[in-house]
Amino acid sequence: MQTIRVETPSAKYDVITGSGLLETLAARIERAAGRLPRRVFVLTSPEIWALWGETFCSSFVRSRIEPPIALFLPQGEQHKTMKNVERLTREMIRAGGDRGSFLIAFGGGIVGDVGGFVAAIFMRGIPYVQAPTTFLSQVDSSVGGKVGVNLPEGKNLVGNFLQPRAVFADIGVLGTLPDRELRAGLMESVKAGIIRDRGLVRFMEEHADAILNREPKALERVIVASIRMKADVVRRDEREGGLRMILNFGHTVGHALEQATRYKAMLHGEAVAWGMVAALAVARRRNTITGAQMERMEKLIYRYGPLPALKVSAARVLAATGSDKKNVGGVRRFVLPIGIGDAGVVEDVTATELDAAVKYMLERARTTGTKGLRD
Amino acid sequence: MQTIRVETPSAKYDVITGSGLLETLAARIERAAGRLPRRVFVLTSPEIWALWGETFCSSFVRSRIEPPIALFLPQGEQHKTMKNVERLTREMIRAGGDRGSFLIAFGGGIVGDVGGFVAAIFMRGIPYVQAPTTFLSQVDSSVGGKVGVNLPEGKNLVGNFLQPRAVFADIGVLGTLPDRELRAGLMESVKAGIIRDRGLVRFMEEHADAILNREPKALERVIVASIRMKADVVRRDEREGGLRMILNFGHTVGHALEQATRYKAMLHGEAVAWGMVAALAVARRRNTITGAQMERMEKLIYRYGPLPALKVSAARVLAATGSDKKNVGGVRRFVLPIGIGDAGVVEDVTATELDAAVKYMLERARTTGTKGLRD
Repeated sequence: MQTIRVETPSAKYDVITGSGLLETLAARIERAAGRLPRRVFVLTSPEIWALWGETFCSSFVRSRIEPPIALFLPQGEQHKTMKNVERLTREMIRAGGDRGSFLIAFGGGIVGDVGGFVAAIFMRGIPYVQAPTTFLSQVDSSVGGKVGVNLPEGKNLVGNFLQPRAVFADIGVLGTLPDRELRAGLMESVKAGIIRDRGLVRFMEEHADAILNREPKALERVIVASIRMKADVVRRDEREGGLRMILNFGHTVGHALEQATRYKAMLHGEAVAWGMVAALAVARRRNTITGAQMERMEKLIYRYGPLPALKVSAARVLAATGSDKKNVGGVRRFVLPIGIGDAGVVEDVTATELDAAVKYMLERARTTGTKGLRD
Repeated sequence: MQTIRVETPSAKYDVITGSGLLETLAARIERAAGRLPRRVFVLTSPEIWALWGETFCSSFVRSRIEPPIALFLPQGEQHKTMKNVERLTREMIRAGGDRGSFLIAFGGGIVGDVGGFVAAIFMRGIPYVQAPTTFLSQVDSSVGGKVGVNLPEGKNLVGNFLQPRAVFADIGVLGTLPDRELRAGLMESVKAGIIRDRGLVRFMEEHADAILNREPKALERVIVASIRMKADVVRRDEREGGLRMILNFGHTVGHALEQATRYKAMLHGEAVAWGMVAALAVARRRNTITGAQMERMEKLIYRYGPLPALKVSAARVLAATGSDKKNVGGVRRFVLPIGIGDAGVVEDVTATELDAAVKYMLERARTTGTKGLRD
């Protein structure tokens, strides 16, 4: 078990990773809450609840906290809506929720984002913790306090910054994670390595089999390094004024891909993986990485594939990049790696560069790493 | 023109009151924003826009800021919904809004609450200013950073705390305010006086005619005193941990009245006025005010009436108090005046006390100050 301290201007909290955390959750929540919460809600997905609900509830039986009231969000990006936020807040009111309530987001990234947003606005804000159940949400979305939902016009266009009181990333829960989701999640660790942790890149190159076989030690090493990287960035720049933008490496084109395919064709991590390939192409053209570095990073990305084929035209992807949230004042922001383990943000990527990068990505999608998906 | 400084742990800003503020708004917003906002939105009601839109826009013609894009919210509490928040954020996206955008809430309390909430969650938060156009919103809701919307289950159940960059309370705009709304708004000033400003109570007793005739000097005196009181309370307790609760004097029963009549029968200030009468009855019973003090405060409330008749049963009002947001863990919070100019919060009001107070209020509503409404 390892504890990573996250410190931001607005909050300080611990991210705890390891096995068997669920079994001791109630006591941990009581500690994180600072006092006995009056009513505890758990937002989860029906699938996770079926697999892990009993384990989740077990620790509350022996605790002073009353058993959590379960609220459900169906799986899938299409449910990350204002409509569901309204429904959930109404259910909480009807179940007796008030300002003294407490929320646990127990699921993947969508549950975490929606749960955090519900906590941020219910009664103008109640405390919450994240209990992420996917690799992706453990290393990425559960840390940092970005919460929110999508609009039909784009992803995460509405939300808040609200840090959780704690994050409990139970590695044991990953045992039931489908292989494809694990691989997609690992792309965020690949990202973490490329932009800020050369050692993580090397570890993921050298221990790919152990990681993909879910050997606990190897997984924990990757999770802890990824969270540390993110915690460090969030500590320096909570509200994405500058540094935090580097976390969006692969996201400009990644989001565009998700939008162009209506969030149905691929997982977030898979879209980011292709987005990283596109960003590498821009970086190569600008000489912030060498040809050898590019090859090495691409190889790492494909190692954690296979990635889905891209049945979308370059024009469609390019059009979709225009509405990315990271663009301020019409400027197309792009995170480019500088060698391996460092990255910077540029705002002057031209339409020509972007066009070339997207075409490179689509070409690679035709030829590499997309030989059907395992699940 | 007077400037009142509001300082909270999360923000510092000025509330500026006086005449002719609208005519110089653009320059003031540029100053408050700290930099040139990339796209400016103004949320307003069709009625206010028809009356004051031209004046509002005039200052932007001469400014470096592009003309604001108008967004509309129909008048009435029933439009203070999540649905409208979603619609507005979508309109902003489609009009090219991004993280560099800026919002002006130009209207009454509902526009201010919804506009502030939209600003709080659009792209996870953009800066905004309040330009309140009703007496009520000038003295109350525009200051303090409480923003949000209603759920079918109750008022203001979803929202955020987000302080505006500035508040511009133009007294000239009050010229077109219907008399009934002015009177309802003045109830918040009566409240301010009763809970924290004996001098304001005296001034409102002695200058009722001048105030109701909208003599600018008298109005400004009342507005400034009311804002100062609120700013002082918010400074000491931004997130309503303790002191700020006294601002809810009259609101426990007031909200219940609004809810029991589905927010249609009366204005917020009118409901609060009746709620204050009920709270006075509890206070009298507990001897925190004398009979003479009670009479004096009731007289002041009715002086700024007439108040609407209450066509609702005691049982219905009592039931509605149960779901008030100010109740935490089932405790019924109540603000009780202590003499004139001071107040405290109690949590142990019994069902019997509340029942007696509501019946007293309904009895007064049958006999006093409800002889039809002027408009």
